[in-house]
Amino acid sequence: MDPLRVGIAGLGTVGGGVVRLLAANAPLIAARAGRPIAVRAVAARERGRDRGIALDGLRWHDRAEALAADPEVDVVVELIGGAEGVARVLVQAALAAGKPVVTANKALIAVHGASLAALAERAGVALAFEAAVAGGIPVIKTLREGLAGNHIARVAGILNGTCNYILSTMRESGRGFAEVLAEAQRLGYAEADPAFDVDGIDAAHKLAILAALAFGRPVDFAAVHVEGIRAVSALDIAYAGELGYRIKLLGIAERTPDGIAARVHPCLLPMAAPLAGVEGVFNAVALEGDFVGSVMLEGRGAGAGPTASAVAADLIDLARGRLTPVWGAAAGRLDAAPALPMSAHVGAYYLRLMVRDQPGVIADVTAVLRDHGISLEQMLQRGRSDAVPVVLVTHATGEAAMRAALTRIAALAVVLEPPALIRIEEA
Amino acid sequence: MDPLRVGIAGLGTVGGGVVRLLAANAPLIAARAGRPIAVRAVAARERGRDRGIALDGLRWHDRAEALAADPEVDVVVELIGGAEGVARVLVQAALAAGKPVVTANKALIAVHGASLAALAERAGVALAFEAAVAGGIPVIKTLREGLAGNHIARVAGILNGTCNYILSTMRESGRGFAEVLAEAQRLGYAEADPAFDVDGIDAAHKLAILAALAFGRPVDFAAVHVEGIRAVSALDIAYAGELGYRIKLLGIAERTPDGIAARVHPCLLPMAAPLAGVEGVFNAVALEGDFVGSVMLEGRGAGAGPTASAVAADLIDLARGRLTPVWGAAAGRLDAAPALPMSAHVGAYYLRLMVRDQPGVIADVTAVLRDHGISLEQMLQRGRSDAVPVVLVTHATGEAAMRAALTRIAALAVVLEPPALIRIEEA
Repeated sequence: MDPLRVGIAGLGTVGGGVVRLLAANAPLIAARAGRPIAVRAVAARERGRDRGIALDGLRWHDRAEALAADPEVDVVVELIGGAEGVARVLVQAALAAGKPVVTANKALIAVHGASLAALAERAGVALAFEAAVAGGIPVIKTLREGLAGNHIARVAGILNGTCNYILSTMRESGRGFAEVLAEAQRLGYAEADPAFDVDGIDAAHKLAILAALAFGRPVDFAAVHVEGIRAVSALDIAYAGELGYRIKLLGIAERTPDGIAARVHPCLLPMAAPLAGVEGVFNAVALEGDFVGSVMLEGRGAGAGPTASAVAADLIDLARGRLTPVWGAAAGRLDAAPALPMSAHVGAYYLRLMVRDQPGVIADVTAVLRDHGISLEQMLQRGRSDAVPVVLVTHATGEAAMRAALTRIAALAVVLEPPALIRIEEA
Repeated sequence: MDPLRVGIAGLGTVGGGVVRLLAANAPLIAARAGRPIAVRAVAARERGRDRGIALDGLRWHDRAEALAADPEVDVVVELIGGAEGVARVLVQAALAAGKPVVTANKALIAVHGASLAALAERAGVALAFEAAVAGGIPVIKTLREGLAGNHIARVAGILNGTCNYILSTMRESGRGFAEVLAEAQRLGYAEADPAFDVDGIDAAHKLAILAALAFGRPVDFAAVHVEGIRAVSALDIAYAGELGYRIKLLGIAERTPDGIAARVHPCLLPMAAPLAGVEGVFNAVALEGDFVGSVMLEGRGAGAGPTASAVAADLIDLARGRLTPVWGAAAGRLDAAPALPMSAHVGAYYLRLMVRDQPGVIADVTAVLRDHGISLEQMLQRGRSDAVPVVLVTHATGEAAMRAALTRIAALAVVLEPPALIRIEEA
């Protein structure tokens, strides 16, 4: 049978991985795809560079967009990255030319996925991005096909391996964020500019995609509330442990009667929760369906091998002619529930204050909480010195009330440092 | 668009769950499937029985095989169960009539899947069985599609919730097998006749199916080595804990240079292994792919809801026209590696003896091990009384040597009870 002819844009770590996988497992892939999947063309800068992969006999394009017009390319694999620029131009051009696209580009799909999916649907071709979320873990396929009979109530995930590595290492070593980040950078687990990861943006891109698939609606990155892990301290990790929790950066999307909530932030997670046990660079996604109950998927969320595995799965689906609308259903049948702002959030909170060690401090703090209708489940206070930590755990509280109370508490004269506020999740 | 018309055979717990799911989530399913999926006919005994589901207007067949011939049935859903009898006759008749089949019947697929798949391929229709393994966890789809670009080296799973519940409860409570089994039966977690579960047969059916999909070969139940959990004692669970292990019933399929090994037996698993943390009635499957690395899926492995979720996913694939060969590749492209016998197994072993408390006992036992070339990693001996337990942990050892040594050790006059031998797995 005729091969599926692939054009790959971007020959970095992931691009090299895809070329290697398609070569190494070619007979297996041909059997599973029902036809060979052959790289026919590539586009990258620096043609002469040694990438350790065989590129002989491939068509070479200096401009990625040329792949969209290459008559020997049936499907474009976009591995350049970035929400704008060349990647976006290429994907638009390929879809407009009626060519299916496979991409690992979470930023592009999160930010421009809605319009790109509409373009793909008009052209009647696939826009596939299993590799964009959680590396080799087939979470896109699971949401869109494996659990397709379920209304999904909630998706929660550890979606950024860099943050999870940093938080795991902080907990194990007792060291602070800056020191562990520096080490992660030396070890290659964090980028020189770590903002994308540690500020939660990468996780938010992925969560936006998961929320779209879980709830059958076009991706809406702007609706995701995003907080990163820079403010998480070793002290709070230790207190969380004492209370029976681990601190994790989670991406959480929930359907409530009022709409869809999507948020990325650090949170306290009970140690017995399945996600709490996911350590280091691993990713995991926990899903709640109305019939299936809880399902969790765990695996390597990044790296050349896992990402190439996901790209290969998308290519095999294409070669087999297995088609699924981008958000799980055709455009006219998508969900229209509104996005909820973070101010509508209700949950328990962990609040840690550094206060002057004098009579009446607790009375002052708890009076503020009382004024805002916030009730306490637990309080820890320990030690005697000029400044002592006080840890408060609330019952379920509205975010708006908590924020208002926090502003007043932070302004108390006896409160010596900006308070630490971390949300608590049950799973 | 025309609905996909479903005929359901068997209206027990699972059949009722499928009817309920397809009704409750009909608009969602129609959106995801691109067309309605409508139950049109059912076959069951006792037509008048109240099942708590609406069956008005459905075509009723007293004989399940009649669904195969019903002109208003496009796809047959077989939820009767059992490797032989009505279920087998129905599935054969449906495939022979050119109708796709969706089934939750692990025994049927494990025992007769090879010939049924050949029949389905000749007829050019699907034989789908996501619900047959690990309930709602989409492990069939993950192996056959999500990780299709990988050579799978190993599949290991907790595949029987009854056994996992019993072992978890034995560990937590310190009670023995018989007592915990009786409790599980009272709670409805174990059948009145528990043999199918506790003797490992159910897990072996599922493992046989996973092995077929992982390695791209027709299912071969006869090649699975099966041991159950009746011989696992509270004492061994306690010793395992002391050594840093949990005892789990695992199904494991591995590709070795010599062929495919598939076995179900209790084993010691390091506490840090992901599968070791899966407790109670949950199921989990850990997969090792050459590019993706480790992936683990966890969820509810049984029950009406999870099983119905899997059946619905198969029906949606059918309605969308997403087709995949039963074992992942067409018949001519399947793997022909031989099945390996258990005697070829190599691994570490846990051996617990009850011995007379007298000088020279350890010398006698270790002399036998030495004679068979078995080296020890650890030994525990404790307490003083007439009969004392001795626990030995070996380095990697061949099964045949271990068995031969065990026969000799069991025959020693100082060994007072039949020895307990449990294999050790690293993950």
